[in-house]
Amino acid sequence: MSERATVTMSATLAADEALARRRSAGEQVISMASGEIGLPVHPALQRMLAGAAQLNAYGPVPGGSALREAAAGYWQRRGLDTDPELVVAGPGSKPLLFGLLLAIGGDPVVPVPGWVSYVAQARLAGSQPIGVPILPGEGGVPDPAALRTAVTRARAAGRDPRCVVVTVPDNPTGTVASGDTLRRLGETARDLDLVIVSDEIYGDLVFDAADPAVSPARYAPERTVTTTGLTKNLALGGWRIGVARFPDGDLGRDLRTALVRVASQIWSSPAAPVQAAAAYALGEPAEITAHVAASRRLHEAVVRTVADRFGAVGALLTPVRATCYLYPDLEPLRAPIGRGYDLHTGDDLVRLLLDRYGIGVLPASAFGEPAIPLRLRLATSQLYGETDEQRWAALAADDPLTLPWIRSTVDRIEEVLADLAGPAHHVHP
Amino acid sequence: MSERATVTMSATLAADEALARRRSAGEQVISMASGEIGLPVHPALQRMLAGAAQLNAYGPVPGGSALREAAAGYWQRRGLDTDPELVVAGPGSKPLLFGLLLAIGGDPVVPVPGWVSYVAQARLAGSQPIGVPILPGEGGVPDPAALRTAVTRARAAGRDPRCVVVTVPDNPTGTVASGDTLRRLGETARDLDLVIVSDEIYGDLVFDAADPAVSPARYAPERTVTTTGLTKNLALGGWRIGVARFPDGDLGRDLRTALVRVASQIWSSPAAPVQAAAAYALGEPAEITAHVAASRRLHEAVVRTVADRFGAVGALLTPVRATCYLYPDLEPLRAPIGRGYDLHTGDDLVRLLLDRYGIGVLPASAFGEPAIPLRLRLATSQLYGETDEQRWAALAADDPLTLPWIRSTVDRIEEVLADLAGPAHHVHP
Repeated sequence: MSERATVTMSATLAADEALARRRSAGEQVISMASGEIGLPVHPALQRMLAGAAQLNAYGPVPGGSALREAAAGYWQRRGLDTDPELVVAGPGSKPLLFGLLLAIGGDPVVPVPGWVSYVAQARLAGSQPIGVPILPGEGGVPDPAALRTAVTRARAAGRDPRCVVVTVPDNPTGTVASGDTLRRLGETARDLDLVIVSDEIYGDLVFDAADPAVSPARYAPERTVTTTGLTKNLALGGWRIGVARFPDGDLGRDLRTALVRVASQIWSSPAAPVQAAAAYALGEPAEITAHVAASRRLHEAVVRTVADRFGAVGALLTPVRATCYLYPDLEPLRAPIGRGYDLHTGDDLVRLLLDRYGIGVLPASAFGEPAIPLRLRLATSQLYGETDEQRWAALAADDPLTLPWIRSTVDRIEEVLADLAGPAHHVHP
Repeated sequence: MSERATVTMSATLAADEALARRRSAGEQVISMASGEIGLPVHPALQRMLAGAAQLNAYGPVPGGSALREAAAGYWQRRGLDTDPELVVAGPGSKPLLFGLLLAIGGDPVVPVPGWVSYVAQARLAGSQPIGVPILPGEGGVPDPAALRTAVTRARAAGRDPRCVVVTVPDNPTGTVASGDTLRRLGETARDLDLVIVSDEIYGDLVFDAADPAVSPARYAPERTVTTTGLTKNLALGGWRIGVARFPDGDLGRDLRTALVRVASQIWSSPAAPVQAAAAYALGEPAEITAHVAASRRLHEAVVRTVADRFGAVGALLTPVRATCYLYPDLEPLRAPIGRGYDLHTGDDLVRLLLDRYGIGVLPASAFGEPAIPLRLRLATSQLYGETDEQRWAALAADDPLTLPWIRSTVDRIEEVLADLAGPAHHVHP
């Protein structure tokens, strides 16, 4: 087996499959491991896909012009002038990020904690990622001062860091780096001549419209490559479509060319019928923006409620500002949880939650953090119902927490937390 | 830019885009560069895709069980017992091949000539491919004796060859390696402990039903990984779906696990609606096998007619037994073609055909051959018409060569060849 291929299975996808197996074996499970969005496909997008079923040509490697123009408009409406020629679409933002790491080369800097696949992708690309911690409460962006130190040291040691990967808003923490941090990130990247690869897949899922996420492309426009897709805002993970935006100028054009070459040899082009539907979605007609808004309100209501339950038993966590993730630290509960259970690492806690309570979550170690702290990443995006009917009802509800299938899950989580934090473990699944 | 990412753009996809630009600028062009299949999507598959538009979950990384079971049946009907658990689907056989090169590691042996992307993919995977020539008239499979010598030498030089990639039937030559050669390949691979990666994307496009292509999995079942997809037999290149079959036993199971890990980090899963249509297609209901058979007859009629025209002016070529490719050597025509034109390499001939006659083809150098010989790879798969109506008529025709839009293209090719081979160049586009 190849050394490069000794990456582990994506932790989120692996957890998803394990939970699906338990569920189909008849177990009651609460899936909070993967950030897959458990919401239906908007009917307009189903119609667009169905209406494009006759499309079978590869078309251009970076996607057809309709899709690239729609993506340019999407960024334009968010304050970023975009040339459709500097847009590359691919079968998901995940392959685009991998292609970018190959195209840029050298060793990427990644945030710690950071999304499960950045490190694995860098290894598959033959690189040694350099992890740099975030600032407290500002996930997804390496602390600019620590970034400077790490890159300077790495270069002194003969290594070749060429880019820094950031996630704005952030997975796993559900937080959003501040404008000030992003400004300093941009300055640092300029000083160090680093490309910024900004994964903005959660860009439409910031709860406070008055305080949106800011792209580092605002502060370092000449060196920031931005990626996004329809996986999170429109629940289209299984359709596999993403887009990348390159900066204007020589650097951006060269990187765009390099990514298109890589794409032509690895995946050819994004699926043609999916491109048609994605072009419609990125055009953001009213029905689509309303659907995204409803999803965002639902995520906010549920993720904040679950976060409150964790806070209520003494877990430490930064307020969730975006996404459907919470990242609680249960270290203050180590003593009660450890009574009668051999508890050392976050992994132990994950196993306890799964085996005793049927609750699937991920440990912080999956995101590059040390193994010991009892820190978890929970995704609440699969709590909206089992059927399309329930999920549409959740999207339409003024208060989704009053819906019985959501209420009962939250109550169960509360019960489990009380049991963990209480004098003895007695709740049965 | 990364050293690894200095691969060139896929020659076929690049040529396709260049021809599409000329065509949309109003030029008359004959596209014979890329092997994209210019035929419509079967209506049943359009219906299956449309009917699956509500599917938006990732599902398992290697594809859902319906698709994997259908793929297992497809191989079963071709004499290869297949466990659905040893099938991995991906967004095209191209990413599956890339993932396999990453999963296997070391330096792959590739046939010369060979498909444009093997070498580029190996470089992107951080490997140095080892080219080994084919036997005359048996494209896609390195000469087993030369394979043994090359691998032995490479190992003596400290390199680490671990697999040999073969194409059965072959692109670019349109030939099919004999059973004897495949048997010797299997023995050699066993002696040298090499994995065989067998790209069988053209497996359904062998013209003589009494003499089908044989998979090396027949001769080296324990070490052969087979890939195929719906791009060639069903013209679904733009849908991006492929499947890989792993051998039973520890080697196969380990490789399958390694590929799934790679897939989980690079592409997640094949698009869910496409999976549904692919499962139907791989189940091979009568309407689908009839459609594939009609396509195969059409390919045969047109590619053999064009091959005859090349033979008639003195080009050398092995009879085409499969696919829609011919690989003529125009070296015997160097003198007449070179009159009044600065002709050295195959590239020069490609430029002449494009600039003077509006005919797009690829040089043998795109397939790893030396630059000098006047050898070309032509694909006739885009000569079936410009509209769905024409393409359906071509599929239904007893003699597609009598259809005016196909007839006129073949006549034009004949005229250009006469001009090239004749005393002076006077045909105008």
